[in-house]
Amino acid sequence: MNAHSSNVVAEAEIRELIDGWLNAARTGDVDGIVAHYAPDIVAYDAVSQLRFIGVDAYKKHWAACMAMCPGPMIFEAPELQVAAGDDVGFAHALIRCGGADESGEEKASWMRMSAGYRKRDGKWLAVHEHFSAPFDMQSGKALFDLRP
Amino acid sequence: MNAHSSNVVAEAEIRELIDGWLNAARTGDVDGIVAHYAPDIVAYDAVSQLRFIGVDAYKKHWAACMAMCPGPMIFEAPELQVAAGDDVGFAHALIRCGGADESGEEKASWMRMSAGYRKRDGKWLAVHEHFSAPFDMQSGKALFDLRP
Repeated sequence: MNAHSSNVVAEAEIRELIDGWLNAARTGDVDGIVAHYAPDIVAYDAVSQLRFIGVDAYKKHWAACMAMCPGPMIFEAPELQVAAGDDVGFAHALIRCGGADESGEEKASWMRMSAGYRKRDGKWLAVHEHFSAPFDMQSGKALFDLRP
Repeated sequence: MNAHSSNVVAEAEIRELIDGWLNAARTGDVDGIVAHYAPDIVAYDAVSQLRFIGVDAYKKHWAACMAMCPGPMIFEAPELQVAAGDDVGFAHALIRCGGADESGEEKASWMRMSAGYRKRDGKWLAVHEHFSAPFDMQSGKALFDLRP
């Protein structure tokens, strides 16, 4: 993330965790997605609610979202940034996400993701996740056409 | 944040940093707000853009937002959660924010905030901040009436 001291091994472990999460999201594998979450995760998702408390509530939400978007997902984080100490870390990335419509045309927009991680019993898990789109101050509408 | 090992001193230091940031936001003190940010902060704000890179760009954005909302702000984080190791930490909270309109009536809504911190040269600073409102999937509109 920068030239300052950081735990390189921990960062690599968190990147591996996130790679697995991105892969699971691309294939619509809800069990695979939630395997990266701690039981007590607090999630701020882009839609519907202020927050989801606990992995069960967040899993239900993921399953409902995935049911609305069948087929392979676009879910790419080309500039992921990770910072980690021995057992606390965080990450953030712009994520290009979307899918193909009925005619096969790709529909994707850029979202923002932040997450907090803890290592417990030798295993990193996300204890916090935040996903969003910015909104336009005049219209109050989410902005889906922005590019980095 | 939970019963697992954590750096209590570091968590207290980050809470103090965030208290100062909340106070600065309440009084519209833009210099006070940005004093909590690292020069290389990457911020995902609730409005207008996908991200702001660097403290100068983010300061300009804060100043423009504060110019639109003169007077004392409501900016409260009653259930702030912080996790920290020796030099990496993160925090998240629902923030009740708003202000009083011309007639003195309070207008506030709940937003979501996540942030990542690093300790550099003995001083904690935010290197990442994410602020958002969720949107409604049908209308695409930001949801300002949600309550925790």
